[in-house]
Amino acid sequence: MKKIEHIGIAVKDIEASNEVFNKLFGEPHYKTEAVESEGVKTSFFQVGPNKIELLEATKEDSPIAKFIAKKGEGIHHIAFDVEDIESEIKRLKDEGFIVLNETPKKGADNKLVAFLHPKTTNGVLIELCQEIANKE
Amino acid sequence: MKKIEHIGIAVKDIEASNEVFNKLFGEPHYKTEAVESEGVKTSFFQVGPNKIELLEATKEDSPIAKFIAKKGEGIHHIAFDVEDIESEIKRLKDEGFIVLNETPKKGADNKLVAFLHPKTTNGVLIELCQEIANKE
Repeated sequence: MKKIEHIGIAVKDIEASNEVFNKLFGEPHYKTEAVESEGVKTSFFQVGPNKIELLEATKEDSPIAKFIAKKGEGIHHIAFDVEDIESEIKRLKDEGFIVLNETPKKGADNKLVAFLHPKTTNGVLIELCQEIANKE
Repeated sequence: MKKIEHIGIAVKDIEASNEVFNKLFGEPHYKTEAVESEGVKTSFFQVGPNKIELLEATKEDSPIAKFIAKKGEGIHHIAFDVEDIESEIKRLKDEGFIVLNETPKKGADNKLVAFLHPKTTNGVLIELCQEIANKE
């Protein structure tokens, strides 16, 4: 794993939270993106080599809506940047981790992503992500 | 803020969790440290420019013990590396954040640290940390 790619934070109101994190970092978010399949709106802040991703649910039954209903706003997941997501999935399965996406799926920010179940990682939801190579 | 310095993860059994994160990263922790004043044992893993800090309570009334009693194991805080912690504390107070340590205190890993109350940061406990300059 190369670095923490981003930390995902579940928020109720992404517009209000953008202002909070703008003040925190002294810089605004650099992009927003909706991921229909996950029922979320996202915004991204850059902090040196890392990012913070704010996530607001757009559907009542989305994972972020359920998370907030259960735990309130807060840190939702940590994403690690990996070189080769398929080989990492295989390696981690062999090590006994529960990989929720045996085939990586398309996530926000031009990434292939796969999640590990928090049950095998001390309650921490971990995302693996690999940049999708630009074909141009 | 320069980068995510580390993510702190509250665990019940640091020995068992060291094995989990060793498997996750494919590399063992590079150091352990007890912080008596906080009632914790810690271990650190390096992931590129970032670190993961595991925290196990050594006292029943320590913040980590209370966190686990309330929320279970999981992500406890995000620490951001700052150049000048005193000026960041002042800037963030002026922006309306609740700074829990107006005077930075000595934390693990040779750092001066100060925390922001999660109430003003969408439920996220944020630590500012600045490397203590080596006098040698």
